Amino acid sequence: MTAEFDLPRRLVAEALGTALLVATVVGSGIMAERLTEDTALALLGNTLPTGAILVVLITILGPISGAHFNPAVTLAMLLRGAIARRAAFAYLLAQILGGLAGTIAAHLMFELAPLALSTHVRVGPAQWLAEVIATFGLVGTILGGLRFNGPAIPWLVGLYITAAYWFTASTSFANPAVAVARAFTDSFSGIRPIDVPGFVVAECLGAVVAVVIFGWLLEPGTRLTIRSALFRPAK
Amino acid sequence: MTAEFDLPRRLVAEALGTALLVATVVGSGIMAERLTEDTALALLGNTLPTGAILVVLITILGPISGAHFNPAVTLAMLLRGAIARRAAFAYLLAQILGGLAGTIAAHLMFELAPLALSTHVRVGPAQWLAEVIATFGLVGTILGGLRFNGPAIPWLVGLYITAAYWFTASTSFANPAVAVARAFTDSFSGIRPIDVPGFVVAECLGAVVAVVIFGWLLEPGTRLTIRSALFRPAK
Amino acid sequence: MTAEFDLPRRLVAEALGTALLVATVVGSGIMAERLTEDTALALLGNTLPTGAILVVLITILGPISGAHFNPAVTLAMLLRGAIARRAAFAYLLAQILGGLAGTIAAHLMFELAPLALSTHVRVGPAQWLAEVIATFGLVGTILGGLRFNGPAIPWLVGLYITAAYWFTASTSFANPAVAVARAFTDSFSGIRPIDVPGFVVAECLGAVVAVVIFGWLLEPGTRLTIRSALFRPAK
Amino acid sequence: MTAEFDLPRRLVAEALGTALLVATVVGSGIMAERLTEDTALALLGNTLPTGAILVVLITILGPISGAHFNPAVTLAMLLRGAIARRAAFAYLLAQILGGLAGTIAAHLMFELAPLALSTHVRVGPAQWLAEVIATFGLVGTILGGLRFNGPAIPWLVGLYITAAYWFTASTSFANPAVAVARAFTDSFSGIRPIDVPGFVVAECLGAVVAVVIFGWLLEPGTRLTIRSALFRPAK
Repeated sequence: MTAEFDLPRRLVAEALGTALLVATVVGSGIMAERLTEDTALALLGNTLPTGAILVVLITILGPISGAHFNPAVTLAMLLRGAIARRAAFAYLLAQILGGLAGTIAAHLMFELAPLALSTHVRVGPAQWLAEVIATFGLVGTILGGLRFNGPAIPWLVGLYITAAYWFTASTSFANPAVAVARAFTDSFSGIRPIDVPGFVVAECLGAVVAVVIFGWLLEPGTRLTIRSALFRPAK
Repeated sequence: MTAEFDLPRRLVAEALGTALLVATVVGSGIMAERLTEDTALALLGNTLPTGAILVVLITILGPISGAHFNPAVTLAMLLRGAIARRAAFAYLLAQILGGLAGTIAAHLMFELAPLALSTHVRVGPAQWLAEVIATFGLVGTILGGLRFNGPAIPWLVGLYITAAYWFTASTSFANPAVAVARAFTDSFSGIRPIDVPGFVVAECLGAVVAVVIFGWLLEPGTRLTIRSALFRPAK
Repeated sequence: MTAEFDLPRRLVAEALGTALLVATVVGSGIMAERLTEDTALALLGNTLPTGAILVVLITILGPISGAHFNPAVTLAMLLRGAIARRAAFAYLLAQILGGLAGTIAAHLMFELAPLALSTHVRVGPAQWLAEVIATFGLVGTILGGLRFNGPAIPWLVGLYITAAYWFTASTSFANPAVAVARAFTDSFSGIRPIDVPGFVVAECLGAVVAVVIFGWLLEPGTRLTIRSALFRPAK
Repeated sequence: MTAEFDLPRRLVAEALGTALLVATVVGSGIMAERLTEDTALALLGNTLPTGAILVVLITILGPISGAHFNPAVTLAMLLRGAIARRAAFAYLLAQILGGLAGTIAAHLMFELAPLALSTHVRVGPAQWLAEVIATFGLVGTILGGLRFNGPAIPWLVGLYITAAYWFTASTSFANPAVAVARAFTDSFSGIRPIDVPGFVVAECLGAVVAVVIFGWLLEPGTRLTIRSALFRPAK
């Protein structure tokens, strides 16, 4: 059994985690594009910090809120009956507000205006397919981890995103709240606001497909939450 | 004991895993060569995602099918009596079909024709020796992991391939199904179709040598499957 | 319970660990700037060794002294009642002396004068905000690790710093003793002596904020030391 | 207790492991210098494979022979009474022969003459100091791992070497057998034969200092071998 944390703590964990995740994505993108002319190197400077911080954030906040940091993950958990509808809606709000706070934090550290609209075009069927696949893989990674190796989930998610930055043509946003937050930075990791809805739809679709396919593949299994998979009492 | 998954699930796991592995190898290769002129950096952008996704895929699919994703691994398991002949043949088909699906997925995400014949020349005794050594090391890694630290196998394979990309002159295909799939992409990670048979023979040879040498080295030991080494019931 | 190491051993562990940490930060910075013109690549050559050595040092010295290597961490532990005031003061001295020894060791290996004043300007509200956030995250990582997964702390800290090098505009010093030591190297990782006090104040502030916010977030919890979280008797 | 492997298997494990280690160091060095003009990137392409293969080799061969692959480590174990003198001498021979085989294997894969004398100058007090520190840290890492977290030793060594490639001015050979093997490659990772003795002396000195200092620091402790720390029977 998990020790239950109350809803305020769970929402703060979601907001704080999403903020630090977005600060890492946006901040490392700004750092990278300032330091090099080589785009592959900039992407590497964006990838490694994102993968690393995910392992940390899921380990230290996962036992509190499940460390979704991502409406697509919350949607998958809702479909599997692992989170209540009201809590899921509150998670969504916390994730979006946290994500925006993350963009602001990154901008202030790098002496930019708090928010700016991105001009980075990310549109079209190939990009959308990339987001479907990216989110399908992310949700499948979490469901597979829950089924076979709960304590490894922080690593699995960090490594999956490390790979997905490179093998998907969209660099794998795979997260509607992060997509919204990245619409407000006109830097390496940005996305034009008008392109966000297409990404969000593709991401939700990928999550639903993952719930269906992995739901079959992993049966017979048991339902459990990320929180209980990661919770270990302090010694 | 492992909870047995039925053959359809095992074959879907093999096909899905090989597809995602090939999508990562091919997709990250396309991404990398588009973003940089520096070939070492492109290889790094190919290496890190491949190593990372292997850890993920073997963790979440290994308990179902053993996560071979590789006819050379299936051959080694067959020689050790850890898989039935009929299942091994079905695995081979699933791996090849999955691999092709992975190439197609990568191409569609990057707006390329679904399949294209590679013009990347990879031939000659030095390349074949590299594939013998690469596959020898891969199979030895798995057998050593099975003997001493089953739960570490996902990490061991991911790290081994990370190293082998660089220390073997062929960048370590070490996998006949992946070699076939990579014949159908005319991008960074491709291989000319006519060069595939030489790679496949070398890889099978490396697997057989590994079974013999590590079979002696690791004795006295016990036979077990990757599935049972990785399976942990959900809490 | 932890086997208690005596204070001399704890202080040597703090000094030795801080020395090796600083030698890695300063040494890899010198190596990197000598080998490449690309600043992003130099930062990567600074980041990966630092993250890697932290995992090692915290694993092998943490059970002795808690592996603070950092007055901001010692301050956080003092605020939480996990270290006595006299010991904390002795830790501070050991960390500063160890840090200076690390700079000297790096300089001698790279044929530089033992100590040199840095001319690297790091000043202003954006840099200070970066250090507040960097240290807030570092202390939060440690407190969250203590609460939920003590044995993972070496990895969590190494990964956190890997990310923080890139997402904070200051490349995340997050450590007053390391900041002092880096004032004495006129190389890639240096900081002007006159800029050190601003960093130290920001780092202490970040640590205090983390103790307050994570103290609330992680409740109900138990107090424990890093030493006892990492200590496992030899077989 | 460890299941004892007989001496022939232990010696084959030492030779095979040292061969694969050297093949990785030399092979990835050749690959890297062929693919890029940037020396920092080449060093990164040399570092990551070496760190990765060490984790693999120590995990799969450590339970057999202790996975020294390194006369300096064997010397440290001899000083601590963890290996018999005759076995230590046999280890030394196996390591040197294995190392040479690794250089030959790398050369043949990359279509070079089997052996060639290096012209890479690595000499002088700063280089020797670097090797003392590098080997001191390596042996300290192993002793600390044995004391507090035996199963982590493969990771600790891989991460330590990843860091040491960059923070020591010599790129951290830290291994007399590898130094000898690298004298016979005229490529990125080579060392002039005449410079090898200075490195070997410095490495042995670093090992002795580590045994003394860590011997005191880690007391009270127990003696044990790497083999028994890593051995887990197959399920």
